[in-house]
Amino acid sequence: MALIVQKYGGTSVGDIERIKNVARRCIATQKEGNDVVVVVSAMSGETNRLLNLVSQISDRPNQREQDVVVATGEQVSIGLVALAIQAMNGKATSFLGHQCRVVTDSTFSKARIKSIDAEKLFAALKKKQIAVVAGFQGIDEDGNITTLGRGGSDTTAVAIAAAIRADCCEIYTDVDGVYTTDPNVCPAARKLEKISYEEMMEFASLGAKVLQIRSVEIAMKYKVPLWVKSSFSDDYPGTLVCEEDRSMEDVVVSGIAYDRNEAKIAVRGVPDVPGVAAKIFGALSEKAIVVDLIVQNVAKDGKTDLTFTVSKSDFASARDVVKGVAKAIKADGVDTDDQVAKVSIVGVGMRTHSGVAAKMFEVLAKEGINIQIISTSEIKVSCLIHSNYTELAVRALHTAFGLDSVETVAAAS
Amino acid sequence: MALIVQKYGGTSVGDIERIKNVARRCIATQKEGNDVVVVVSAMSGETNRLLNLVSQISDRPNQREQDVVVATGEQVSIGLVALAIQAMNGKATSFLGHQCRVVTDSTFSKARIKSIDAEKLFAALKKKQIAVVAGFQGIDEDGNITTLGRGGSDTTAVAIAAAIRADCCEIYTDVDGVYTTDPNVCPAARKLEKISYEEMMEFASLGAKVLQIRSVEIAMKYKVPLWVKSSFSDDYPGTLVCEEDRSMEDVVVSGIAYDRNEAKIAVRGVPDVPGVAAKIFGALSEKAIVVDLIVQNVAKDGKTDLTFTVSKSDFASARDVVKGVAKAIKADGVDTDDQVAKVSIVGVGMRTHSGVAAKMFEVLAKEGINIQIISTSEIKVSCLIHSNYTELAVRALHTAFGLDSVETVAAAS
Repeated sequence: MALIVQKYGGTSVGDIERIKNVARRCIATQKEGNDVVVVVSAMSGETNRLLNLVSQISDRPNQREQDVVVATGEQVSIGLVALAIQAMNGKATSFLGHQCRVVTDSTFSKARIKSIDAEKLFAALKKKQIAVVAGFQGIDEDGNITTLGRGGSDTTAVAIAAAIRADCCEIYTDVDGVYTTDPNVCPAARKLEKISYEEMMEFASLGAKVLQIRSVEIAMKYKVPLWVKSSFSDDYPGTLVCEEDRSMEDVVVSGIAYDRNEAKIAVRGVPDVPGVAAKIFGALSEKAIVVDLIVQNVAKDGKTDLTFTVSKSDFASARDVVKGVAKAIKADGVDTDDQVAKVSIVGVGMRTHSGVAAKMFEVLAKEGINIQIISTSEIKVSCLIHSNYTELAVRALHTAFGLDSVETVAAAS
Repeated sequence: MALIVQKYGGTSVGDIERIKNVARRCIATQKEGNDVVVVVSAMSGETNRLLNLVSQISDRPNQREQDVVVATGEQVSIGLVALAIQAMNGKATSFLGHQCRVVTDSTFSKARIKSIDAEKLFAALKKKQIAVVAGFQGIDEDGNITTLGRGGSDTTAVAIAAAIRADCCEIYTDVDGVYTTDPNVCPAARKLEKISYEEMMEFASLGAKVLQIRSVEIAMKYKVPLWVKSSFSDDYPGTLVCEEDRSMEDVVVSGIAYDRNEAKIAVRGVPDVPGVAAKIFGALSEKAIVVDLIVQNVAKDGKTDLTFTVSKSDFASARDVVKGVAKAIKADGVDTDDQVAKVSIVGVGMRTHSGVAAKMFEVLAKEGINIQIISTSEIKVSCLIHSNYTELAVRALHTAFGLDSVETVAAAS
């Protein structure tokens, strides 16, 4: 007997038939002798419908009130899922964020979970009920409704799994696992049986949309084994996200990620004196703009160039901020480019293998792709390139690092 | 400066334009120097949409879970109204049932309010904010979401007005006040300037759909002056529901109500021994079926007839229950009829005027309308008649009791 948290996304509860399907799965898992907590998202399309109502009223809606509106999507889902379980003679009780005390900070629309009260959930489980919990939402210390940002239901599920010390957390989604890269871009992409938390975090932060990065962070911190599975098919076991083990280190690169949602800003001729970088990035941080890659060239004639990337949604406001600062610090000018993409190779095996970055540069060079910025961490190497070459780069790297599926390799040889 | 509670129903917040209109009215009321609490219903159609989702899953949905689903309608409305006020440079904060602690009993889907915590509302008002409160919903002592039944937002508004000792409660609706009778049935119907709580309660319980009866009950108990007004027009002052005063007693009959939502059940040949009526009505009450009019004839040959009415929605199950009991108590048989209507005259003046009931019977007789059941209270007389004669009866009584509007009377003379 195990204690299992299952999470179903918007497409998995997209209509009444699918909601019944979720109910069936929950009951089946319980019948196998397990205690089941199920976390659900809003029915697909619902969050957008609600945001559309909000946008008809205000361009810059107050985030507290917007959260009040969008949190209703998950509330409808939990009621319907609980009713569907009951209609199949199962036992279920639904829980809203304020009912199982998912307490967050007060950063409306992207709040972070601080604590969860497991007591009510345990009480329901003890009565052999399936606890149906609203994803994405919480309350702050003052009882205001908060939401956790897009994909926040993943985080709810993992945080609950951590709070109740579940044996595992199963994330049901419309893909059947984590792939070596996006199968839409690279047909040779292969499903991974297993991947470490750290690799998964790199994937999540590099633009793969399988899991919200915060959910992987929490899973890693509390060592919650995380399954990514298809909610539409039982044929595949999915991908297990777990602690790194020996076998993983033998694989140098476990996957290729890409992200087209970046834009580049370059400040030319920046005076090479202390405090200049702080002025630029301080001004950006004041506007809550997150900077990703940063490169500073070696100074020449007392001047240097500073290049960095921001997400496309922050591009316009970042450009305005930087132009202001550039003038103030007497830089030569500001160049911008939103036709860029970040391509990355990820793998815990890099730690023990050398020459991985060099091989990446070589592969890109061979395809005639110019590298604009390079950034590395212990388990990943990222290159910013012109966005036109995204697919080409991903496919070339996928093949070069031996990730192509056996069938594809066989067919090619 | 006054403290005013305004309530807007579903049609008043039916789309984005109307929501903006509500925001405009709230701000205008505040600008006149008042503190404003606004209670809103779900956008029109929304509650039915949610109930339809529920009914696709279950014929007999668990009422706790159904409440979780339908309570979202008001939640969306308060967020949107608060955003609309803010978009017009007003200050607003929304409050859910659990946030301003609208504590109810645990009778899901028709809960009764036990207490309201005014503290958070006062805090918002002190900051010159408009407090936007979700109607229809509350929480029970265990923190479960509850709803107050159809029309429950009226009750929320009046209960809040009582809790914060508001100067008045304004119910904005799609009619512009309380009429002497349904203008759709009787073109000579006239809007009332003023009506007593007790009369309004009779009207509400007799099938006039202007206000939920529970809301009038609370208004009477806490002496909250209640205005019924149009949310679409400022041209008319609406109707004031308030304590009885001298002037009201001069009017013998203040209005005519009718209700087609009744059905009649007659048990023939009931043995005239103690405890028989208790058996019949006890069995009905076990099934939570509310009985309205009851008549028992004088016994003859040790047998009597027992006739009563129930609402049409309970008709089928009431019939089954009664047939079972009738067999057990050896009654002669059960007759049923759902082609009936209850027509009533209401007025506090009846207390001091005699002959009112006699006049009503005379008017109906003159129109050839047979009276099936008669029921009286201190301030009303109800007659059950064949439903075909509803409109005829209402119009004849309206004229006979001098309620026709001046224009109509003038035109006829």
